[in-house]
Amino acid sequence: MDKLGVNRWCFHDRDIAPDAKTLAETNANLDEVVELAKELQKGTDIIPLWGTAQLFMHPRYMHGGATSSELGVYAYAAAQVKKAMEVTHYLGGENYVFWGGREGYQTLLNTDMKRELDHLAAFLQAAVDYKKKIGFNGILLIEPKPQEPTKHQYDWDAATSFAFLQKYGLTGEFKLNIECNHATLSGHSCHHELETARINGLLGNIDANTGDPQIGWDTDQFLTDISEATLVMLSVVRNGGLAPGGFNFDAKLRRESTDVEDMFIAHISGMDTLARGLRNVAKLIEDGSLGELVRKRYQSFDSELGALIEAGKGDFETLEKKAMEWGEPTVSSAKQELAEMIFQSAL
Amino acid sequence: MDKLGVNRWCFHDRDIAPDAKTLAETNANLDEVVELAKELQKGTDIIPLWGTAQLFMHPRYMHGGATSSELGVYAYAAAQVKKAMEVTHYLGGENYVFWGGREGYQTLLNTDMKRELDHLAAFLQAAVDYKKKIGFNGILLIEPKPQEPTKHQYDWDAATSFAFLQKYGLTGEFKLNIECNHATLSGHSCHHELETARINGLLGNIDANTGDPQIGWDTDQFLTDISEATLVMLSVVRNGGLAPGGFNFDAKLRRESTDVEDMFIAHISGMDTLARGLRNVAKLIEDGSLGELVRKRYQSFDSELGALIEAGKGDFETLEKKAMEWGEPTVSSAKQELAEMIFQSAL
Amino acid sequence: MDKLGVNRWCFHDRDIAPDAKTLAETNANLDEVVELAKELQKGTDIIPLWGTAQLFMHPRYMHGGATSSELGVYAYAAAQVKKAMEVTHYLGGENYVFWGGREGYQTLLNTDMKRELDHLAAFLQAAVDYKKKIGFNGILLIEPKPQEPTKHQYDWDAATSFAFLQKYGLTGEFKLNIECNHATLSGHSCHHELETARINGLLGNIDANTGDPQIGWDTDQFLTDISEATLVMLSVVRNGGLAPGGFNFDAKLRRESTDVEDMFIAHISGMDTLARGLRNVAKLIEDGSLGELVRKRYQSFDSELGALIEAGKGDFETLEKKAMEWGEPTVSSAKQELAEMIFQSAL
Amino acid sequence: MDKLGVNRWCFHDRDIAPDAKTLAETNANLDEVVELAKELQKGTDIIPLWGTAQLFMHPRYMHGGATSSELGVYAYAAAQVKKAMEVTHYLGGENYVFWGGREGYQTLLNTDMKRELDHLAAFLQAAVDYKKKIGFNGILLIEPKPQEPTKHQYDWDAATSFAFLQKYGLTGEFKLNIECNHATLSGHSCHHELETARINGLLGNIDANTGDPQIGWDTDQFLTDISEATLVMLSVVRNGGLAPGGFNFDAKLRRESTDVEDMFIAHISGMDTLARGLRNVAKLIEDGSLGELVRKRYQSFDSELGALIEAGKGDFETLEKKAMEWGEPTVSSAKQELAEMIFQSAL
Repeated sequence: MDKLGVNRWCFHDRDIAPDAKTLAETNANLDEVVELAKELQKGTDIIPLWGTAQLFMHPRYMHGGATSSELGVYAYAAAQVKKAMEVTHYLGGENYVFWGGREGYQTLLNTDMKRELDHLAAFLQAAVDYKKKIGFNGILLIEPKPQEPTKHQYDWDAATSFAFLQKYGLTGEFKLNIECNHATLSGHSCHHELETARINGLLGNIDANTGDPQIGWDTDQFLTDISEATLVMLSVVRNGGLAPGGFNFDAKLRRESTDVEDMFIAHISGMDTLARGLRNVAKLIEDGSLGELVRKRYQSFDSELGALIEAGKGDFETLEKKAMEWGEPTVSSAKQELAEMIFQSAL
Repeated sequence: MDKLGVNRWCFHDRDIAPDAKTLAETNANLDEVVELAKELQKGTDIIPLWGTAQLFMHPRYMHGGATSSELGVYAYAAAQVKKAMEVTHYLGGENYVFWGGREGYQTLLNTDMKRELDHLAAFLQAAVDYKKKIGFNGILLIEPKPQEPTKHQYDWDAATSFAFLQKYGLTGEFKLNIECNHATLSGHSCHHELETARINGLLGNIDANTGDPQIGWDTDQFLTDISEATLVMLSVVRNGGLAPGGFNFDAKLRRESTDVEDMFIAHISGMDTLARGLRNVAKLIEDGSLGELVRKRYQSFDSELGALIEAGKGDFETLEKKAMEWGEPTVSSAKQELAEMIFQSAL
Repeated sequence: MDKLGVNRWCFHDRDIAPDAKTLAETNANLDEVVELAKELQKGTDIIPLWGTAQLFMHPRYMHGGATSSELGVYAYAAAQVKKAMEVTHYLGGENYVFWGGREGYQTLLNTDMKRELDHLAAFLQAAVDYKKKIGFNGILLIEPKPQEPTKHQYDWDAATSFAFLQKYGLTGEFKLNIECNHATLSGHSCHHELETARINGLLGNIDANTGDPQIGWDTDQFLTDISEATLVMLSVVRNGGLAPGGFNFDAKLRRESTDVEDMFIAHISGMDTLARGLRNVAKLIEDGSLGELVRKRYQSFDSELGALIEAGKGDFETLEKKAMEWGEPTVSSAKQELAEMIFQSAL
Repeated sequence: MDKLGVNRWCFHDRDIAPDAKTLAETNANLDEVVELAKELQKGTDIIPLWGTAQLFMHPRYMHGGATSSELGVYAYAAAQVKKAMEVTHYLGGENYVFWGGREGYQTLLNTDMKRELDHLAAFLQAAVDYKKKIGFNGILLIEPKPQEPTKHQYDWDAATSFAFLQKYGLTGEFKLNIECNHATLSGHSCHHELETARINGLLGNIDANTGDPQIGWDTDQFLTDISEATLVMLSVVRNGGLAPGGFNFDAKLRRESTDVEDMFIAHISGMDTLARGLRNVAKLIEDGSLGELVRKRYQSFDSELGALIEAGKGDFETLEKKAMEWGEPTVSSAKQELAEMIFQSAL
């Protein structure tokens, strides 16, 4: 981390300390490693960006954690998240992430989806309660992903997560951790997911791993596409930054990359790409023409009637009268080619 | 309709009467055809299942209707929907459908997504108000579709539509019209979309057209897959039926089917498939083993602690204590192969 | 196998006997298990449908076997296939399968695709030579798959494999092992891949595992879709059967299915589905109307000019003369809806 | 074209002159426009890059042209292609394109795929014969596309087209016109399709339109992605250029772009992007490190045994002996992250 010049780290509980025979022993394993981490953090400005509980690799979680069909697993998952939140808090972590690796279904034929979703909501509410109890002020983050390992993951995309949070009254307590690869797997551009989160006040963190547009699973590649990085940074700047969230990479090297330096190269390459993206955004903002193009497209709404509509007072009778009076409306070009050219010129 | 034995029809306003030079003339065109329809309905039990306004083929709607960047188009769309609701009501229609053919974007580079969504909500609120004003008691239906003709349609899928309805306080006023082809285009099975709508109290109508699983656009084929039809009917039966909604087919014949009888064959084939689906559901219910398999999977929650959790009172400390006490939880098989065999045997 | 009533088995060398420290020891491991298999086969009619070498799980194969960038790995893979062919022959195996698990690339940026394909062809030619040398008369089968674990597998689909076999003069020596799940991953229906193989004389074996149409990776589910099973059997019957090939299931149980009986249920369910498919094909053939529909569509070619064209003698001048003489051609309906109805009625 | 500074144009016959009542009149329409084009070309260096016959919009082609089930349509298509080849030749065209818009199937249930493919081959052979007869020396180009408007187009991708050309002995007479959007629709990167064509001696022309990676149909956007443009140019440079082929854009403006300047902007943007791509390739070649990385990966084959294998003489016994002798092979890192970093740095 010194060599890379980064000051935030992230962890799954089970990736830093192994499962033992009992939960008590497993917790003790974790405590030992956490103590070491605390020690290593001392005298640096390094703290966790977020911590999380790994609820998907152990066979007990084969049917999920919070959405498992087994009460015992639900309780076990609760205990594991409780502990993971505690150690994240202890290490000064800024956020806590929920990625529902196995919170979903393989087939609806054997699944009570409503009951599972109700359980998930109860679980997350309990997490909110416990967070407050221990005085942890970090943001709770949900990381949407559409599928893999399950056929359907309940946190499918930003909009699905937003629907869930609203239904169960959890909106104020959670933000989203958007991963570009998960975005594309759900059929959206990464920029779409970021903007969907942003305009609903939910953009909390970005998992900057990217995928392959022709591939139907998570390749977790480091972002090297300058065009995508620029769009990502556009959302971040519009959001006024991400803090206390930030960017994380899933620090996973591909099976075929076996040199010690490969992991360094991957991080450097990913960080440089995002840095270039940020510079491009600066150019786009200084130039101003892309913003102006968008503003002008909607200028007919910057009018008295537009204001009425946007205030929720544009009733159909009034609008019909106007439509009759105005005749066939004029429609301007969407200027997509120009917008693409302006964008591409900034890269 | 006599020959097919069906008593509900559906229409787009512009498919039954052409655009004229002015909105007033266009409305007059529509009135004339509607009068004829009223005449033809007389003495029969045939009424519209739903009516809708076609806001996507005329160039004025190139940027959308309710989400157009042009105020004049928004007003025009409002006037058109107002009229379409009136004639649907006049003909005794049971529902009114919103399919946002061009309510979406081609690229975020030239789009103010938040402003467009705010406009869409204002538009739908005005529709609710007008519906009440004219005493139309039909259900308002939103038909989710992920894309085509736009890159991203705002009513992407059931969950996205549910998020939107909740955000803008429109939940009580709308249900969903689920189309199987739109479901698969959004990356979900049709059954998933139906169940998502159902468990959120939003299942209103089914557009029974199906698609090709390998194709990325709407083929609008008539449903002939017995397995899919059985799953569709499973949701309908669990929903206690659909009324006042129902099933509709997009009565569109493929370009290569040029005989008069082809349209009949398509309808008969689609209706028979759904009828076979319903019979299969009856068999599944009578047999009972699939339902029992699902019930048993979750039986550990049919306990005191399960009830506590489901009442929202399962806090992390209590659960941790149980997890420590119980040790490693036992996890039963998900019995997916058995569930699939039971299902297949009923077909 | 007794309980299921099946008399063919399939194996990956490394699945039946583990890797040891040296190739010689690994071969000795394999010999021991093969001897046991030979013993168990005695007095039964059970023999291998096919054997194959597992060239994808050991890290040495991370860049492929026959297409590895490392000469040492190429040699190792050759030695492993040599041994696997020997034991398949020894056990009376009827076919030998090549599934190129890691024969492909992750990115073209670091790959010499032409050189890798040349190596693959040289490898397969050496396999042909060795097969003849040891007197093994089984069919060599290539199993197309588009991707996973690599981004692009060289045996992408039936047509790609056919292009490769023709280019390198290997057509007469290989047939294809079509897997339905691999078909759908490559964007084709399973029926398309089977028919592509069949009309090019390449249909050798069927791996009957199926996938999920909404999922971008290999779920290896047992086939329970009656419609798909009927189409599969249609190709088999048209092919005059598959022998010496056959059907195999990848006998892999899903992680969530943990009961002993689950594997039995899966096999029974898959076999019954194929049996129902075969019965449906019998009905379709006895009825005859689907075949007749297709024959009639092309009957204008059952003419003198049609025969001329099909003999490769329909030159453009002759055809132009006819086109001028005939005027606007009449075009019949494709009767897709009728074809679908006939098909569905047989299920 | 003057303003844009381009000197090649492309045309569909029916896009430059409309269908009339009879083929003779239609041909006369075409002659008139062609004469005008000839006149306009005079004194310039503008000639057609290619011409083509539009065999997909008129209802007579609903079942295809060369693969129509109707003999009369086959003859009509032949007459149309004959004429289109003549006028392309007359205008000094350098190539002639076959894009099989409707040469494919909607469902295999009503299709005799083998017979249709045989007809297609006979048709293309007749085109070759006629080309030679009239002394047209241009390249015949097949443009692969996987689907749309049909479910399956026979020229699915480069490999499928190569399989077809080899089977019917047409390899020497045709090259491919690769379109990036068609590449991605078939599940490949554009670079993959270009490289597949190139290493098989089939890279003839590039249709530089691009698509949207999340969308399942042809959006025919102008290429503005610098990364993709660089990869495209890498293939072109490796191919020693494209002449007599070249680049074409489908000069189609999107429905929402209604200003006169939009078409100019689109072309300028597309050409500039390709120019930037070419500059990036020059940088990559001058730097040399990416090429060196790839060369070094395979250096173990630059040895005596490697040469033996590549000469087709590496038999299994020899290779087994080496594998035993060498022990566990060493395997180097694939250096994907480094390759991506080098590539990205050149953009």
